[in-house]
Amino acid sequence: MEAKEISKAVIKRLPRYYRYLGELMEENVERISSNDLSKKMHVTASQIRQDLNNFGGFGQQGYGYNVRYLYTEIGKILGLDTVHPMIILGAGNLGQALANYVDFEKRGFKLVGIFDVNPVLEGIAVRGIEIQMLSDLPLFLKENEVEIAILTLPKIKAKEMAKILIDNGIKAIWNFAHIDLDAPEDVMVENVHLSESLMTLSYNLSEYRKEHEGM
Amino acid sequence: MEAKEISKAVIKRLPRYYRYLGELMEENVERISSNDLSKKMHVTASQIRQDLNNFGGFGQQGYGYNVRYLYTEIGKILGLDTVHPMIILGAGNLGQALANYVDFEKRGFKLVGIFDVNPVLEGIAVRGIEIQMLSDLPLFLKENEVEIAILTLPKIKAKEMAKILIDNGIKAIWNFAHIDLDAPEDVMVENVHLSESLMTLSYNLSEYRKEHEGM
Repeated sequence: MEAKEISKAVIKRLPRYYRYLGELMEENVERISSNDLSKKMHVTASQIRQDLNNFGGFGQQGYGYNVRYLYTEIGKILGLDTVHPMIILGAGNLGQALANYVDFEKRGFKLVGIFDVNPVLEGIAVRGIEIQMLSDLPLFLKENEVEIAILTLPKIKAKEMAKILIDNGIKAIWNFAHIDLDAPEDVMVENVHLSESLMTLSYNLSEYRKEHEGM
Repeated sequence: MEAKEISKAVIKRLPRYYRYLGELMEENVERISSNDLSKKMHVTASQIRQDLNNFGGFGQQGYGYNVRYLYTEIGKILGLDTVHPMIILGAGNLGQALANYVDFEKRGFKLVGIFDVNPVLEGIAVRGIEIQMLSDLPLFLKENEVEIAILTLPKIKAKEMAKILIDNGIKAIWNFAHIDLDAPEDVMVENVHLSESLMTLSYNLSEYRKEHEGM
């Protein structure tokens, strides 16, 4: 299966297909037409067919999609059929929130370590994993297989830690720090800039008001 | 200033300009050319000029941009020149993490209430604001001015609460629940689907491996 030249927009939609198919499975739906899926997801049916054709199709003309099969195949495309050992740097509220998110583990994202700078937190267990000091990180990375690092540190610390992670062979960083990380081409970075999302909301709100209430 | 037909992509980049200009101000930079800004942000200079021209320009040929002026103006476009009273529904780790994020308040996003279903949390203060029960929400909305509601509730509860929010005149929802909310056209919804962001990372990781390590 060739998966090259797939646009970012398609890739962004895949997890959404996966979520909707998961919901259909919970509702014991076995088959769904692209028309019905399109109504549910507020996407056009031709968009769905186009998106899925990037990966080989999965549907039979007139029979619709087998929900469980499509769910499983999209899961494979998303890399959810293997275990991804993952660590969290930053054991504050956000780090702990992510550590406690059980859905991640169900999808193969397995938490294997949590690190912080604050000595008060050392040894405290979060979901059975004891918080370690960031100074122990390089040794930990040498002795353990880690694939994904989650950064929930302040921006100054984040930059320094990203370097340590990259120098020690980490290939995927999920970055919550309010900064753009410099990473080489073979290190995948996915940013969640929360305050930028909130600003987009406030932009849309004030634009809507200008248009509808005059200004 | 007309701000219509501005593409989503431009709007998504505005908070990033705002962030970089804020960093330049911290470094006491007073003026910057679009070339220098472009190097810093890894965007082309013509992209920057095009983006800013949507809002009237802000630059003088040959003089570059006045950093503080541009920062202030983009802040206004983003609606950061007014106070946005905001409530959080869901006082779990994520809700508390967002409540404690001081940067939001600096930008005018003022937390005025936190709500949860868990009676154990009732009355506990988070940044000086006592957690109230979700059953008190409708009355609170009638008696207080609230602009933005942050949803960090499980998806079943989130749907029900979104309805209450909308029925009580809330016009902006920042949704962290793993669900697409049905909202009328005059209610702005900004979604942060964390697990979808993590899946995008795992997709990119497995694609990269397929391409570079063979499969």
